[in-house]
Amino acid sequence: MGTFAAVDVIRAKRDGGVLSDGQIDWVVDAYTRGVVADEQMSALAMAILLNGMTGPEIARWTAAMIASGERLDLSTVPRPTVDKHSTGGVGDKITLPLTPLVAACGAAVPQLSGRGLGHTGGTLDKLESIPGWRATLGNDEFLAQLRDLGAVICAAGAGLAPADRKLYALRDVTGTVEAIPLIASSIMSKKIAEGTGALVLDVKVGSGAFMKSVADARELARTMVELGGAHGVRTVALLTEMSTPLGRAVGNAVEVAESVEVLAGGGPPDVVELTLALAREMLDAAGLPDADPAAALADGRAMDSWRAMVRAQGGAPDAPLASANEVEVVRAGADGYVAAVDAYAIGVAAWRLGAGRARKEDPVVAAAGVVLHKRPGEAVRAGEPLYELRADDAGRIPAALAEAAEAVRISATAPPVAPLVIERID
Amino acid sequence: MGTFAAVDVIRAKRDGGVLSDGQIDWVVDAYTRGVVADEQMSALAMAILLNGMTGPEIARWTAAMIASGERLDLSTVPRPTVDKHSTGGVGDKITLPLTPLVAACGAAVPQLSGRGLGHTGGTLDKLESIPGWRATLGNDEFLAQLRDLGAVICAAGAGLAPADRKLYALRDVTGTVEAIPLIASSIMSKKIAEGTGALVLDVKVGSGAFMKSVADARELARTMVELGGAHGVRTVALLTEMSTPLGRAVGNAVEVAESVEVLAGGGPPDVVELTLALAREMLDAAGLPDADPAAALADGRAMDSWRAMVRAQGGAPDAPLASANEVEVVRAGADGYVAAVDAYAIGVAAWRLGAGRARKEDPVVAAAGVVLHKRPGEAVRAGEPLYELRADDAGRIPAALAEAAEAVRISATAPPVAPLVIERID
Repeated sequence: MGTFAAVDVIRAKRDGGVLSDGQIDWVVDAYTRGVVADEQMSALAMAILLNGMTGPEIARWTAAMIASGERLDLSTVPRPTVDKHSTGGVGDKITLPLTPLVAACGAAVPQLSGRGLGHTGGTLDKLESIPGWRATLGNDEFLAQLRDLGAVICAAGAGLAPADRKLYALRDVTGTVEAIPLIASSIMSKKIAEGTGALVLDVKVGSGAFMKSVADARELARTMVELGGAHGVRTVALLTEMSTPLGRAVGNAVEVAESVEVLAGGGPPDVVELTLALAREMLDAAGLPDADPAAALADGRAMDSWRAMVRAQGGAPDAPLASANEVEVVRAGADGYVAAVDAYAIGVAAWRLGAGRARKEDPVVAAAGVVLHKRPGEAVRAGEPLYELRADDAGRIPAALAEAAEAVRISATAPPVAPLVIERID
Repeated sequence: MGTFAAVDVIRAKRDGGVLSDGQIDWVVDAYTRGVVADEQMSALAMAILLNGMTGPEIARWTAAMIASGERLDLSTVPRPTVDKHSTGGVGDKITLPLTPLVAACGAAVPQLSGRGLGHTGGTLDKLESIPGWRATLGNDEFLAQLRDLGAVICAAGAGLAPADRKLYALRDVTGTVEAIPLIASSIMSKKIAEGTGALVLDVKVGSGAFMKSVADARELARTMVELGGAHGVRTVALLTEMSTPLGRAVGNAVEVAESVEVLAGGGPPDVVELTLALAREMLDAAGLPDADPAAALADGRAMDSWRAMVRAQGGAPDAPLASANEVEVVRAGADGYVAAVDAYAIGVAAWRLGAGRARKEDPVVAAAGVVLHKRPGEAVRAGEPLYELRADDAGRIPAALAEAAEAVRISATAPPVAPLVIERID
């Protein structure tokens, strides 16, 4: 690996050039070690955002991020391994029922997750509303649980792709998050380093998602599917609808409760549909095409797997979840049909209620969130509840009300139903 | 002034938008105070470089940079004030004869200068090769000398446009120097804050200049002329040739010696021509169109003014200048005419010899530099000296020789002569 000047690397990308393998290896490594300064990497990130990267550049960048840390070895796990990653949405609790469901069908799911920042929630934040549950496992604990139960959801250790950890924090404060090459390499470097054999990506599209257009989502999905393949990880992506929140619950404890409903064979139809669609893709990718996830939901195997997984990490699956001190119900002003429930507005409202955090060191409130009484397509009468806001502190209600005020649109006729899965990319 | 989030300002420019006055005022002020971090400003600078700024945005940015510090009041100076700024070239010692010459013709020149970084030299570095001369004056000393002699060349105080000082250092390490809006606002904020009534810009074009094309130089010149006018500073720009070094001397002491030759009525014709062209523009802009700078050079008034200016700052105008321990003469390999002497290569060679600095804390070597024996258009015989390299340390010669090796091109016929002043913009 040669030595380069940071300014020369920045200028090359600024002027629309293609970075060499040596330049990429050097700049990622030197940034991780602190030789390339934050202000240099942010200028490079902006140049990448505005001038793009070629496929080979993205592949090399991703490899350099993986090489910045350790790569887990899951070869001692006796089942095929398969993971899922969602690009983030409002009410997206799918990982909670999906992980034990896929484990119940014979695969092992090494789900290393993150916390929420901004209007989308974090899987670990949700699970932490279960009394006693802990997110942090050592590598040995993680492997033992994966071998024994086939299902782990825990915090990614600091050893995986440290370059990404540092770069992501920088992008967050420098307006450089929205660069597809950097999003793709960030997600895939962590998933590849985690050691999974196969991966299913849930790339969200719509107001509540990071990608607002199908074209952008497709580009991101294709980039990630290619990266996975290049590193020997069988990777498939579903583009799924995220203009409407998933299910009825948006928050932490409320999403755990809804997940348990799904595991018990009930729950909102869209959550069940997406859970099964992703489970089928994961089982296919894991080489278990004959597994029947719908049966595993119906006969209680998925629920047993959930309870074992929660208990293994100190959680009490039967303990009551936190309930909110303050509940504000918003009612319909007219008869009609719910035409739309805007995911972004509901996500921001839940965040304002305390379900999410503005800074990564903030705590979240387990009981806070939004519960939808009506979803798009449902009939409503004037005066009936549309949704409720839940908080521990009444002072948080007004700001959330203001955010949610325009979220629900009522029309005279029933709206067309948008499909949940938009496209499959492999 | 409202409060904005840095990320929102960065995103607005990243997405091709126009920043509001409030956003510009806030981000420049907040950056100066350390509220906006270096890594945020460098991302913004890269977005400005790639997406540009409108005229009103540049004007507001410049005003915000001026407002970040003090603005000198030259109203007690009994003569009209006029300054000159060069965008930087190789062998560009013009400020040295020009400042006392214009003062000798009745104007006052408040020349606040900087030091060299990279392949172009700095005016203060050159003057510091005069024994005893000091670059740093207090505001009171500066004003007194300007009132008494009409000529001061000294270091700009830290109080002028501190935002620019901080931003320039950042741009230097983040590949964001080459943004015309930021170059223009950097130069003009300091010149406007300095309090001059009029300003003549020498915008260099060519291999040894910052701007390689006439189109870029013209855009920069127009932007700066407009900025000056908007702030009540009569501003004119000359676009001048910088593919060839100015004069025969490139370095520090050697450039002082050549300047003194010009003040004595001799010196290389191109240095005399540019000195007189800029002097005429300055005197016109200062409202003294009848002054005769050629006469002031010929009759010794300019030399008297130089000696008084040097003495006022502790310098000994008659003291011998440093001479080099090591001199390497490079000779012509064939008969012919000098077709080209590449300014950039000669500038880098002088830098390697010790005349310039790589980091701003490095010292410079007074005696180091390059002296041209032949300039473009001159006939040469095989074996005659083309140029000599001067250094205090023989170890510096080989790297400089390598840089200069291809600098001089010899052809069989006399080359056409390029005009020195390419265009005038007002």
